[in-house]
Amino acid sequence: MMVEGVHFDVSFVTPFQLGFKILSVNVSDIYAMGGIPRHVLLDIALTKDADEGFIGAFFDGVRSGLERYRLVLVGGDLSASRSGVVLSATLGGYAKKPVFRSGARPGDRIYVTGNLGDSACGLELLKRIKRPLMIESGDITHKPLKWATMEPLVRRHLLPEARDPSSFAGRATSMIDISDGLFIDLSRICDESGVGARIYMEQLPLSPQMKKAASVLGLEPYSLAASGGEDYELLFTAPPRKRVEAFCIGEITVSGRVVVERDRSERTFGREGYIHWH
Amino acid sequence: MMVEGVHFDVSFVTPFQLGFKILSVNVSDIYAMGGIPRHVLLDIALTKDADEGFIGAFFDGVRSGLERYRLVLVGGDLSASRSGVVLSATLGGYAKKPVFRSGARPGDRIYVTGNLGDSACGLELLKRIKRPLMIESGDITHKPLKWATMEPLVRRHLLPEARDPSSFAGRATSMIDISDGLFIDLSRICDESGVGARIYMEQLPLSPQMKKAASVLGLEPYSLAASGGEDYELLFTAPPRKRVEAFCIGEITVSGRVVVERDRSERTFGREGYIHWH
Repeated sequence: MMVEGVHFDVSFVTPFQLGFKILSVNVSDIYAMGGIPRHVLLDIALTKDADEGFIGAFFDGVRSGLERYRLVLVGGDLSASRSGVVLSATLGGYAKKPVFRSGARPGDRIYVTGNLGDSACGLELLKRIKRPLMIESGDITHKPLKWATMEPLVRRHLLPEARDPSSFAGRATSMIDISDGLFIDLSRICDESGVGARIYMEQLPLSPQMKKAASVLGLEPYSLAASGGEDYELLFTAPPRKRVEAFCIGEITVSGRVVVERDRSERTFGREGYIHWH
Repeated sequence: MMVEGVHFDVSFVTPFQLGFKILSVNVSDIYAMGGIPRHVLLDIALTKDADEGFIGAFFDGVRSGLERYRLVLVGGDLSASRSGVVLSATLGGYAKKPVFRSGARPGDRIYVTGNLGDSACGLELLKRIKRPLMIESGDITHKPLKWATMEPLVRRHLLPEARDPSSFAGRATSMIDISDGLFIDLSRICDESGVGARIYMEQLPLSPQMKKAASVLGLEPYSLAASGGEDYELLFTAPPRKRVEAFCIGEITVSGRVVVERDRSERTFGREGYIHWH
């Protein structure tokens, strides 16, 4: 469910981006169980002042997402809303052998599929720019940083692509997508698997663009990576001898939730994730 | 999708009724295709001032609907809302041989499963009472009419039960549930089947309570039955020699949409349905 004023702000996001993103975030949930998404039902409530331009651009974004993920729109509902846009998507899919959050075992390695913190950093940039960026058609008129630095960050926030796990899902013992932040989502795997975890900050994959932007914005890049939300990268565990193409950031332990900082000091982590950023 | 201020008014409806009704209206859609509903996903957006009492009573209504229709709640989402409650339900089910709107053939008889107009008449009563009626626990403190007259009418509006077609679905050539009113929904079957219809006003099943209440309220009961919405009775067609337990109200023709009034005069009908009542 995406609610205007709660999950998105139309001063930051275009209708196209909304249409694409609501599919991506739901596809990401199905991918995170090793599933193949297929059917989409979309409920849309619009205020009476929503113009045809909004609806057309929104459905262009939906269409783009349907093609990107090979989905079929099979139903839904269109309604009036008293205030603001409310979107609700339901996706159906298939999983021959679903991957749960509960299968992590001590000794497993912990992996992420891509750079962390780009989306949270992109959101911070958008908050400073204070208007929508039509990145889908190359909007480069406002540049607090070089466009090549900003683009992948705001893109990761506005038009996130879900990661298809089909090349490694068969070897994963547990999986989740990082929507609320690495610490929170890894805590969920620990809770449901009844295990601990140890992660190494210096092993978190950070994009050079995010490091650059964070330094200009005065933000701590490793904190963005560990606690920023909406990465939509997959976080999974696999036994140590299994070969997977992903970034190893730590290992599953019997108990405790430990972060090894870059200076080798250790502290514990918990559910202090996305709350910093939303 | 049910949006506060658009589909319901919290001055007429209790949280329990909302929770039950959102399941009934969606179950009705699956029944209308000859399907068996099974899985429920429920998205709920609530304003910050929604108290625990609201949420508890709403889920009591949901639980009652899950038991009534043998459903399983398998997922959903809970969100904040900026103004008013927004509910979105998605139901999954099974149909070995789905019944479509497109199978009606000239000569088929037209049937409805129960009394028409009770719900629209109940809504008119509620508009005059101007406060919620907790009919689920026997609220009988306000009586513009005898409670025995009012109760089935407001119940049909507030706590509608979907009609299970399993005893006749195998003989139906087309089917729809009456949510927007008989005229509108029969027009949909005519459109999708490429046929006409002839219905007899005097054959519409009207409850004695509705006739009584309509006369007290100064409303025309046959007009409520033909154009009032939210009946959630099933409207279906079947070949003439098939035996079904339902009310025959007319027959499918090659073309034209004709109503035979009680005085034997004829007029055409179209999509002038629920718009009178909402």
